[in-house]
Amino acid sequence: MKDMMKTLVRTGPDTPTGQLLRRYWIPVLLSKEIGDPDGPQVRVKILGEKLLAFRDSEGRPGLISEFCSHRGASLYFGRNEGNGIRCSYHGLKFDVHGKCVDVPQAPQVCEKMHVRGYPCIEKAGVLWAYMGPKDKQPAPPGVEWANLPESHVFVSKRMQECNYLQAMEGGIDTSHVSFVHRFEVDNDPFHQGTKANDYIKADGNVTFEIERHKGGLTLFGRRKGEPDSFYWRVTQWIFPWYNLIPPFGDHALGGHVWVPIDDENCWAWSINFHPDKPLSAEERHHLEVGKGVHCEYEAGTDVPGGTWRPKANKDNDYLIDRQAQKEGRAFSGVFGFAAQDASLQESMGAIQDHDAEKLLPSDRAIVMARRMLYEATVGLDQGQEPPGLESRAQRVRSAGVLLPHAQKPQEWAQVHLVAGEDQPVYSL
Amino acid sequence: MKDMMKTLVRTGPDTPTGQLLRRYWIPVLLSKEIGDPDGPQVRVKILGEKLLAFRDSEGRPGLISEFCSHRGASLYFGRNEGNGIRCSYHGLKFDVHGKCVDVPQAPQVCEKMHVRGYPCIEKAGVLWAYMGPKDKQPAPPGVEWANLPESHVFVSKRMQECNYLQAMEGGIDTSHVSFVHRFEVDNDPFHQGTKANDYIKADGNVTFEIERHKGGLTLFGRRKGEPDSFYWRVTQWIFPWYNLIPPFGDHALGGHVWVPIDDENCWAWSINFHPDKPLSAEERHHLEVGKGVHCEYEAGTDVPGGTWRPKANKDNDYLIDRQAQKEGRAFSGVFGFAAQDASLQESMGAIQDHDAEKLLPSDRAIVMARRMLYEATVGLDQGQEPPGLESRAQRVRSAGVLLPHAQKPQEWAQVHLVAGEDQPVYSL
Amino acid sequence: MKDMMKTLVRTGPDTPTGQLLRRYWIPVLLSKEIGDPDGPQVRVKILGEKLLAFRDSEGRPGLISEFCSHRGASLYFGRNEGNGIRCSYHGLKFDVHGKCVDVPQAPQVCEKMHVRGYPCIEKAGVLWAYMGPKDKQPAPPGVEWANLPESHVFVSKRMQECNYLQAMEGGIDTSHVSFVHRFEVDNDPFHQGTKANDYIKADGNVTFEIERHKGGLTLFGRRKGEPDSFYWRVTQWIFPWYNLIPPFGDHALGGHVWVPIDDENCWAWSINFHPDKPLSAEERHHLEVGKGVHCEYEAGTDVPGGTWRPKANKDNDYLIDRQAQKEGRAFSGVFGFAAQDASLQESMGAIQDHDAEKLLPSDRAIVMARRMLYEATVGLDQGQEPPGLESRAQRVRSAGVLLPHAQKPQEWAQVHLVAGEDQPVYSL
Repeated sequence: MKDMMKTLVRTGPDTPTGQLLRRYWIPVLLSKEIGDPDGPQVRVKILGEKLLAFRDSEGRPGLISEFCSHRGASLYFGRNEGNGIRCSYHGLKFDVHGKCVDVPQAPQVCEKMHVRGYPCIEKAGVLWAYMGPKDKQPAPPGVEWANLPESHVFVSKRMQECNYLQAMEGGIDTSHVSFVHRFEVDNDPFHQGTKANDYIKADGNVTFEIERHKGGLTLFGRRKGEPDSFYWRVTQWIFPWYNLIPPFGDHALGGHVWVPIDDENCWAWSINFHPDKPLSAEERHHLEVGKGVHCEYEAGTDVPGGTWRPKANKDNDYLIDRQAQKEGRAFSGVFGFAAQDASLQESMGAIQDHDAEKLLPSDRAIVMARRMLYEATVGLDQGQEPPGLESRAQRVRSAGVLLPHAQKPQEWAQVHLVAGEDQPVYSL
Repeated sequence: MKDMMKTLVRTGPDTPTGQLLRRYWIPVLLSKEIGDPDGPQVRVKILGEKLLAFRDSEGRPGLISEFCSHRGASLYFGRNEGNGIRCSYHGLKFDVHGKCVDVPQAPQVCEKMHVRGYPCIEKAGVLWAYMGPKDKQPAPPGVEWANLPESHVFVSKRMQECNYLQAMEGGIDTSHVSFVHRFEVDNDPFHQGTKANDYIKADGNVTFEIERHKGGLTLFGRRKGEPDSFYWRVTQWIFPWYNLIPPFGDHALGGHVWVPIDDENCWAWSINFHPDKPLSAEERHHLEVGKGVHCEYEAGTDVPGGTWRPKANKDNDYLIDRQAQKEGRAFSGVFGFAAQDASLQESMGAIQDHDAEKLLPSDRAIVMARRMLYEATVGLDQGQEPPGLESRAQRVRSAGVLLPHAQKPQEWAQVHLVAGEDQPVYSL
Repeated sequence: MKDMMKTLVRTGPDTPTGQLLRRYWIPVLLSKEIGDPDGPQVRVKILGEKLLAFRDSEGRPGLISEFCSHRGASLYFGRNEGNGIRCSYHGLKFDVHGKCVDVPQAPQVCEKMHVRGYPCIEKAGVLWAYMGPKDKQPAPPGVEWANLPESHVFVSKRMQECNYLQAMEGGIDTSHVSFVHRFEVDNDPFHQGTKANDYIKADGNVTFEIERHKGGLTLFGRRKGEPDSFYWRVTQWIFPWYNLIPPFGDHALGGHVWVPIDDENCWAWSINFHPDKPLSAEERHHLEVGKGVHCEYEAGTDVPGGTWRPKANKDNDYLIDRQAQKEGRAFSGVFGFAAQDASLQESMGAIQDHDAEKLLPSDRAIVMARRMLYEATVGLDQGQEPPGLESRAQRVRSAGVLLPHAQKPQEWAQVHLVAGEDQPVYSL
């Protein structure tokens, strides 16, 4: 267990888990952070590697090493023009692939001067990159929200100041919802006016059935529903860092991605979407001002290449309000799903001390996900292909559903929880 | 010597000196920092350990590990209610002893989920804890000021950004008073209008006699007094981190405690008290605004669980005023006893480089205290009980006294310098 | 190569390169930072050593250890009076040589209590120190600008947040001028109205000849001049950390010194001078407001003993202006020679990762300088005297000159590029 955890929290370029994660498409930036062709390039750190993202003259996105191959100066200070970034120190120029296309002082060595460059793709307003071996590039990301029209999806990101694993485990672990988020559901526009909310509040005693499948885990959480039914909430964890959250009533479905910046920080991506219709103007407004699983930002940080650090952060104790806590308006005194999660997960330390934890039976899903990730890491080292790379394996869906007492939710799920054009959306 | 110093400056949970210090009652917080029952819990770090202090529904103080035994989330974000702190992550609940009293998901494992908890006591407006082995808990702290009515005592604390040892040595070393503090005595209300002040200024050539006793050291400093007498100032160092300062005339007696936060920071506690009468309203006013050995604070830090960082600190060079230095209003340009001590002691580095120091004969008291601490540390490791644990050993007192040339101050002290109900207060 | 670079970037007291650098006179502070006799002493860190500079009662400059030999308290808090600094902790006093001249408590040990003290000299408004072995003190610094009347010279300094070597290499490497500084020459008053500017802009294809001599390197850069001539720019690198920049027309000559503060920071000194006449009032005004190779400072840092951190620094991305970059007003978007250099050199990391660099043929001068420094370092260790210590070796000069196609610039240089009273100033 100790070795397993020490392996899973290390994600730098030369680590086994880093190698595993580099086999998947990675959300890197919001597409809008590299706006127009030849616009300002931005810095971004992913999996411990300092990178530069830019859009070239033809509008192609590029993700290359931040540093010039010559003397190591940052290309952030370079010029983005003529289909490439020219280093301001000695004029070397690199295209979106990291290929060196000009060495003014010594054209003859041009070929040897390339920097690392990673294939990019844009989907759902997100710039994704593939940072693994060239001959292993998988199909584009298959998660449902990444393949919808932009009108149907809203994506935001925030920096979380801890290891990606403990952040992601919060997303797998649905049992914490009844505590830190307990009163939040009453504040949040994406939970209003639904029977789901009533079922959740009426029955805190959830029981879980967990299904392990090829590309992740499906969690079936059972609560009392109507007199003759159970209310099932079905949550997904998808390899290697996605989760999907069931909707409340007709509200949008949700999801997250947790991507290591380095081992002590991660990008926490938050997504809401309707599979079959655009988000309404009202919904979009709520999302843009940071409601639901999204957040407000520290001033000046929500800019291209910015830190995207939440306004409520560890330096201000997440704007904790002890009076609100006492009055039952916020369970911990912290408001907002994102800040509630971050406050607890960051308080565990930049990298949780796993030697000190004492897991409970209710942590079974977390234990299963850890094992699956570790098996995939070890397997990769032994020549096995990582799981869940096929686009289809990623096209699952979360749901909330009332089922007669006698009906098994797994059977229902086999029919209803595979996303796709010809599948109906299910929600309570 | 090198080994000795390297041992004494390390005070974490698993260090020999840390083990020694944990055998004594430790001032942890001002009682008022955990005000009302079920009020906000506060974080505090002591001897390298991150702790949470709170007052439960019945008003009992508790000092427990800051982190939940389950996943390691901070209990700072928990709920203080129903005689315990409930973790906001998954609802585990702990009482003032650190005992786990509820695990909503798995009641059957409750017994195994306890966190560390330390016995607490409140005296003189201070919350004290005992952090050593359960079967070794000593009698309550015996220092005189801790056992007086609250009306007679004023206690403050400030963070000092260096190792506790070099801070404490400043309190043992009375010879520095003639330098950095030289002009301060003229500014300070607790030195006004006394002959003691005149004696001190008239005779800088103090000579010391040092008496080693069971629980510490008594320093007898001799200056010229009246034509037929010497003016003796008698200072105490009490195991393992207390000192007592003689009064000036009828002004209050003083004292300090230096408690490691970690090895690079300490809590410098400052105390003034009258053994036999309340502090006057005027005295209390001066104390509350930071006169005497107390200080003003950096804005926003003197709050429950705050850093209690002085307004004059290393980031602003302790508000040094070179003009005042030139004009002889402040010896070093820094004002205030606390800032004067901190400026010098912090300038020695977070942990003084003891290899580079060259001690003088006038450092004898420091050398003796170091040896006594080291012997106690080594002794504890060999099964000996630490010195000065008995309450009586701590009930000594400082004094300033005129004695005929022929009278030995030790003889006088045997009669007059043991505090207690039936002992007269002595001051010049 | 790896060993060489790892050696050259380490300059602390006990390192081979540190030992080499300590054999030369070192610019330490601006003389004005220790203004009047008995004025405020200031802290300064050089080659990893924390020092205190002061001017004693007789006006003599002193550079001694920052810390008292007794307990290690900072002498910054001491009193500068009576031809020495008195420590505020216990009153020990030290003179400009570091000699202990008073130990109030124990006069008999005075002799043993000295601190390190380094010989100082003042030239061109700069305080220089010699920090090497006593019996090896070389002749005073021989660089031309240091030996001119103060009216002829302007010297400024700024902190640069990277290793001295990569900063200095920017000064040796003239090929970067055509890139990051390209548009700056049009903004700068010290480049206005000269044909030199036209030649440089008209012919970016410089070719270099490099001459290695006893005390450094002379770089001859050839561009097209008039129809029958070449325009040669002759730049100097002088052991171990100086460069000299050719003038533009009748404008002032320039130069730099890069002195390690520690291995991750250096003092970048910038100099302008006329060898044979005072700087005009207009020139001095431009220099004082930070034009040319000088800079503006972060508020409050350009004070005696301050950090002298530029206003444009890495925390604000050197005030990069992407619009100005797009419009061709600033090549990288950063304005000012100093900020342009710092932005690139600091972006290479506090200590450049030399394993990752790929040098070009145009880096020949850098490679030569590295080798010369390394040979000198290794040589010193083997008992050889460092190169370029003789004052004469340092008295070279930079120049810009039009020469007939057939004339070798080396021949011209032998006559014209040795500074001295009887030498004409040459500039285009």
